[in-house]
Amino acid sequence: MESVLARYRDLTVARLLSDIPKSGEDDLYDLVRAYPSRSGKGLRPALCLAVCQALGGDVEKAIGSAVALELTHNAFLILDDVQDGSQMRRGLPTLSAEHGLGVAVNVGNATNLLALQHLMANRWTLGPNLAWTVLQESALMMRHSLEGQAIEVAWIRNNTCDLIDDDYYRMCMKKSSWYTCIYPCRVGVIVAEGKREATARFDRYGCYLGAAFQIQDDLLNLTGHYSRYGKEISGDLWEGKRTLVLIEYLRRCTTAQRKQMERFLGKARAERTEAEVQWVRDELLASVCVDTVRARARALADEAHAEALKVFNDYPDSDDKQFLLDLPFYMVERDS
Amino acid sequence: MESVLARYRDLTVARLLSDIPKSGEDDLYDLVRAYPSRSGKGLRPALCLAVCQALGGDVEKAIGSAVALELTHNAFLILDDVQDGSQMRRGLPTLSAEHGLGVAVNVGNATNLLALQHLMANRWTLGPNLAWTVLQESALMMRHSLEGQAIEVAWIRNNTCDLIDDDYYRMCMKKSSWYTCIYPCRVGVIVAEGKREATARFDRYGCYLGAAFQIQDDLLNLTGHYSRYGKEISGDLWEGKRTLVLIEYLRRCTTAQRKQMERFLGKARAERTEAEVQWVRDELLASVCVDTVRARARALADEAHAEALKVFNDYPDSDDKQFLLDLPFYMVERDS
Repeated sequence: MESVLARYRDLTVARLLSDIPKSGEDDLYDLVRAYPSRSGKGLRPALCLAVCQALGGDVEKAIGSAVALELTHNAFLILDDVQDGSQMRRGLPTLSAEHGLGVAVNVGNATNLLALQHLMANRWTLGPNLAWTVLQESALMMRHSLEGQAIEVAWIRNNTCDLIDDDYYRMCMKKSSWYTCIYPCRVGVIVAEGKREATARFDRYGCYLGAAFQIQDDLLNLTGHYSRYGKEISGDLWEGKRTLVLIEYLRRCTTAQRKQMERFLGKARAERTEAEVQWVRDELLASVCVDTVRARARALADEAHAEALKVFNDYPDSDDKQFLLDLPFYMVERDS
Repeated sequence: MESVLARYRDLTVARLLSDIPKSGEDDLYDLVRAYPSRSGKGLRPALCLAVCQALGGDVEKAIGSAVALELTHNAFLILDDVQDGSQMRRGLPTLSAEHGLGVAVNVGNATNLLALQHLMANRWTLGPNLAWTVLQESALMMRHSLEGQAIEVAWIRNNTCDLIDDDYYRMCMKKSSWYTCIYPCRVGVIVAEGKREATARFDRYGCYLGAAFQIQDDLLNLTGHYSRYGKEISGDLWEGKRTLVLIEYLRRCTTAQRKQMERFLGKARAERTEAEVQWVRDELLASVCVDTVRARARALADEAHAEALKVFNDYPDSDDKQFLLDLPFYMVERDS
């Protein structure tokens, strides 16, 4: 499982880095290399390439799209760190912390542009029609991601505290599942089969898989070890993110706890103190919410696995098929 | 002249606004409307549409590209305001000042995505090949713009003080001329003539026109009136931007002045004081540099006009041709 992941990640990152232009007097393109060079998991390109291969497609035809996806993901990370004022990413300072907002936004934009260029270069490997289809899927994916991000930001700014699980899942599907799982599967299918039909048959798999992934990410942010996780622990609490654990807590807690939590969530990030964040963390960890949510993530992984069994029923066994069947469990067991 | 400009701007902005999706629970798309709704000049779409029309093309076929261009421009402004920490834009608070970085970056990204969607919709009005050509031009334009922006940011961060005029013009061509003038002309030609050949014949016109535009912009930032200009006056000084006036000053000033100026420029933005910025402003205004640079902008406008005469020699007289011939003078005479 981890060897398939590493193989596809290394393939993608090597191609990604070799296709970045040389920097001139400024260091724009050198800085585009920064995040992709830090060891990420490479989940998204691996998913795309594994689906393509498992369906009998040619990985070499999908690699350009996988590179574009990994670039898009890195651009998200760069701009996300700008938005959140984050200090650390993959164990090193964020671009914005090290080089300032101006440079970080620029590098984020350049990373997005390189992604677009890779999608346009698909014209030569996939032909104009299929390249266009992948581009359309990319625009749709970006739309879902941005709208999901906007929902999350609006909850924080409006101090929305009456959310239910379904609100979270809807936001999560748009913000995370679409670009992390649904889109990579769709592109893998399109490239493998050379047509735009029946590209949605992995959507349910991707949807469950993405939710399991995001919930585990939220849990790691709350309970993980910095050395493995590479981001500030409790960063979500500082930002006031509406995670499933928090939603669960707000449903179960006493009126007094709720009042105090809502007061904390109503503050601007800069007004929050270390002691308050520690209080929130202790509250969440002392409750049964973490266990409840962890069980939820495992149930979602089971659903994703069951979906994969169904969709892959007709395809011969292969390393890639096995990878896709096992991936849901990896999503919820990983510690980084 | 101003009536042609207003007509094309109104046409573009109306189409742009009517094609923005409705907002959901968050206000993502409502905020995408904010900057385009504030009265900009609409130079870029007007240039694109006027070239198309002057060459006998159909404005209705170019409007989608003009809308995409105006969206791209607004996305630049939004993200520029994030990068620079600007407070005011077109006479109202910037998105980042009013709604925070998170919202502003998101709205900037959504604005860029809408631009891409308009370029993709060109497929239905221009056919797949021409739509692809416009998309390729757009990627090239974005590349120049980002690289130009990176050069400017690097000069500020490295406190580069030994620049010559040619450095400025090269940066200006990439950062401003390309997307403000060269690209709009190229797209106008492509749509009017329905082919990708000979699209570069307005490049010299666009290059001179863009430099004249940017220099006038720098001058307005230094000498303009807030009520007309709509941005903080002296914002460039706070940011330490390397304008032609500053480059001219550094060449002419005494060693003592140079030392003091370099010390100012070497500071981070947050370290600069009101009194220091006032000193820099007084120094620049007391020198002959402003007049020298203003004369330079006029000479560039003359060059642009001469280029337009040459390129348009073969085309019949029309309002649009006249608009393009007069535009260089408008660029350097405008006070907003």
